Amino acid sequence: MTGSSSIGLHRVAEPVGVLPQAAWRLDPSPRLWPDETRVRVQRLNLDAASFRQLWTENGGDGDAVRAAVLGIVAERGKMQNPVTGSGGMLVGTVEEVGPASPLGLAAGDRVATLVSLTLTPLAISDRLARWDGRSEQVPCDGHAILFGRSIVAKLPDDLPAPLALAVLDVCGAPALTARVVRGLCGREFSGPPSVAVLGGAGKSGSLALAAARRAGAGRLVGVVPHEGEAAALKGAGLADEVVVADARDPVALANAVGEPVDATLVCVDVPGCEHGAVLATRAGGTVLFFSMATSFPAAALGAEGVAADVTMLIGNGYVPGHAELALRLVREEPGVRALFDARLGESGG
Amino acid sequence: MTGSSSIGLHRVAEPVGVLPQAAWRLDPSPRLWPDETRVRVQRLNLDAASFRQLWTENGGDGDAVRAAVLGIVAERGKMQNPVTGSGGMLVGTVEEVGPASPLGLAAGDRVATLVSLTLTPLAISDRLARWDGRSEQVPCDGHAILFGRSIVAKLPDDLPAPLALAVLDVCGAPALTARVVRGLCGREFSGPPSVAVLGGAGKSGSLALAAARRAGAGRLVGVVPHEGEAAALKGAGLADEVVVADARDPVALANAVGEPVDATLVCVDVPGCEHGAVLATRAGGTVLFFSMATSFPAAALGAEGVAADVTMLIGNGYVPGHAELALRLVREEPGVRALFDARLGESGG
Repeated sequence: MTGSSSIGLHRVAEPVGVLPQAAWRLDPSPRLWPDETRVRVQRLNLDAASFRQLWTENGGDGDAVRAAVLGIVAERGKMQNPVTGSGGMLVGTVEEVGPASPLGLAAGDRVATLVSLTLTPLAISDRLARWDGRSEQVPCDGHAILFGRSIVAKLPDDLPAPLALAVLDVCGAPALTARVVRGLCGREFSGPPSVAVLGGAGKSGSLALAAARRAGAGRLVGVVPHEGEAAALKGAGLADEVVVADARDPVALANAVGEPVDATLVCVDVPGCEHGAVLATRAGGTVLFFSMATSFPAAALGAEGVAADVTMLIGNGYVPGHAELALRLVREEPGVRALFDARLGESGG
Repeated sequence: MTGSSSIGLHRVAEPVGVLPQAAWRLDPSPRLWPDETRVRVQRLNLDAASFRQLWTENGGDGDAVRAAVLGIVAERGKMQNPVTGSGGMLVGTVEEVGPASPLGLAAGDRVATLVSLTLTPLAISDRLARWDGRSEQVPCDGHAILFGRSIVAKLPDDLPAPLALAVLDVCGAPALTARVVRGLCGREFSGPPSVAVLGGAGKSGSLALAAARRAGAGRLVGVVPHEGEAAALKGAGLADEVVVADARDPVALANAVGEPVDATLVCVDVPGCEHGAVLATRAGGTVLFFSMATSFPAAALGAEGVAADVTMLIGNGYVPGHAELALRLVREEPGVRALFDARLGESGG
């Protein structure tokens, strides 16, 4: 049985017995259990859906938004928007490491959490005085607690922080892609496996394309929604073929991909892409869903409805070594770096 | 690219370009395309959710329920409840087989469809005169069209029809279980893989337990919600250990399962079992979700939240040979047969 304290059960204040993510209230007291780590918080990155809800509910009044965030953290011991259920991530500096912590951190390390704020004990000490309440980026002084099984990445010195955070935000996708493609390479196919990536010009999509290539993929198809993204992805040189199609239109998507592929990766965050992904994949192939907009019943019943014998995987956000792999890809693949830089430039980040 | 007619795109009347399941209206005309099959319908089994909605909307008036079903089929060319979106299955006799049909059927075969009524062209010719509108079982005369890639099972002569239909309804679970367990056997573990089945005394759960055993599983744990089901499952002899736990309580479930297993199969149709299934599974293991109540984000974020490196599979309802395997299990495994008979007896079926 899993050691209970390693996932933070002892920090659940209410209701007792649930996991930290499902808890209403966590205990954020600064004193550490042996396998815990305390981080001095410098910035919170609120989840986009959470910030949008707070902004709307408070009529675009930044002071009211700030008061709302302070109220949530004071009441719940974590930053989890009670309406959207979502959180975000944080950046800070390691302050103290428990003697039994397995995370490999030392005091002074700059880190970003890769688990959600929804399960991270948090206390704010500066009343968020440096935040105007008008952006998801929240300058903050306070402390947060990491558990033995928390996931955290040291921030690299050689990359701008906004770029590193954007990469870390989607770092599960390339790692799982690499594992799946390597697995397909090991089977008795005629040649290296073909792979289609829906949303190939996006953050997770471009990393997935680069990871698939390195893992041994053959034909690589990038699917994008319009000509603007097609030009960007062609310029990046990450795919052998770049096609424009609406991933929500199964027949159009399958026609655009052409010869069905060994694996299809769904990296677009719009609902309704399940049937198209199944149709674009050959019998015996694999569909890997990274999009949080994926509907479980649509995938299960959709494959049955067309008698498609495909393996369908839920994109687990955690794969050992995922942060290191994603950072390496953005360092070493100019095409990935160019796509990220363009997106961060657009958003002013 | 998938041949379009084999999944029935040519039968989509409105809107053009979507798959039959997503269509508002199908063309149910009896004339066959070369790879199609026409079935003379004897009975419709409406999906439970659909019947309940019709019953409630029509105030428990059987005549009004019958009129509603006739209206839906006349308007849509298929039996898909416009509120619930669900359908059901049908039983009938093969009337005509197109020259290019790959289904291996002959006129006179008694069959059940294993794809949903939501994608099956259907016309009713007897005004449902033999149905009182008060049950999901609808005696019916009419015809239905099967496509080249439809999934259909011949009804066996040696099993009562209600039993065969109940088995066929969940036949994807044992087939995919067998494939996953065989895959785990091929890896370098110490000994045969251990497997936990949540809902082990249920229809899909008991078949999954029997399939796992035959595929080479070692320790088999059946998890049930209360002592009544525990006694039934112990009597059936399908599991090495039978434990009582609420699958929605992650910590209680993981404690009940004990040593984390190589694979956990989720066969209970209640929401909120994702975290428990992940916690009960060892690092590097597999979780296979058969429950339509599974939440994709809860699974993906839940595994990440506890840094669990587990492979999570969406239970595709279609695996080649699934009907034959499930029928063989209920014939050859007295424990499976006893659990099914007890359930069918309870429901009067």
